[in-house]
Amino acid sequence: MSAQSGDVALREQGNAFMPRFDSAGLITAVAQDAATGAVLMVAFMDAEALAATRRTGLAHFHSRSRGRLWMKGETSGHVLRVQDILVDCDQDALVLQVTPAGPACHTGAPTCFYRRLEGEELARVEPAPVA
Amino acid sequence: MSAQSGDVALREQGNAFMPRFDSAGLITAVAQDAATGAVLMVAFMDAEALAATRRTGLAHFHSRSRGRLWMKGETSGHVLRVQDILVDCDQDALVLQVTPAGPACHTGAPTCFYRRLEGEELARVEPAPVA
Repeated sequence: MSAQSGDVALREQGNAFMPRFDSAGLITAVAQDAATGAVLMVAFMDAEALAATRRTGLAHFHSRSRGRLWMKGETSGHVLRVQDILVDCDQDALVLQVTPAGPACHTGAPTCFYRRLEGEELARVEPAPVA
Repeated sequence: MSAQSGDVALREQGNAFMPRFDSAGLITAVAQDAATGAVLMVAFMDAEALAATRRTGLAHFHSRSRGRLWMKGETSGHVLRVQDILVDCDQDALVLQVTPAGPACHTGAPTCFYRRLEGEELARVEPAPVA
């Protein structure tokens, strides 16, 4: 077995957590409602955000636009309590199974994925939030 | 309203599909089992992969490592039939709700997310596939 295939086997089949950050130091994180299975949001974590998430049990991400750590809900109070962290085969993506404290989207929608493609247009799949 | 906030409102609340590719020309795509809600895999699409997915109804992605378009299942036959495409608030991530034709992971697992973090280690959450 070559060193490289050994590395792949270890990463895919082993029990060591070896998160693979990309060239920008980020890993993709999908927040999924632990109760309903709905995908709530997709964001990125750097090592700092991952460590903060594991330490506090609340989802933290790295904002690419603001260039800093942020806790989801730090302003709105709509934190995401992490029940489980799933890791994919090549360890470059995470699924956070969470219990949301409120609407996950900053627009007030329960999930950021409140629209679906219908032909060439978008249509709402979630009722609009009460203003 | 400034031009910028107008753009944001249009992107977040409008019915125009305006996918926002990143500086590498990519958008994050999460494949979710339409029947079970399980997150199957996370990958990236460029405009070509998105167009191929919409045209064929089968999930296509852009491989960053191979630098080319690929259809999920092109080798294994385990294609992902796309039932719905959900779009997030700022249109930089997609959820493909799919019907998988077989195990979604190249390892043979039903989903790429077959392990969870337990303390400092990973533990399998899906039974190992039959060899």
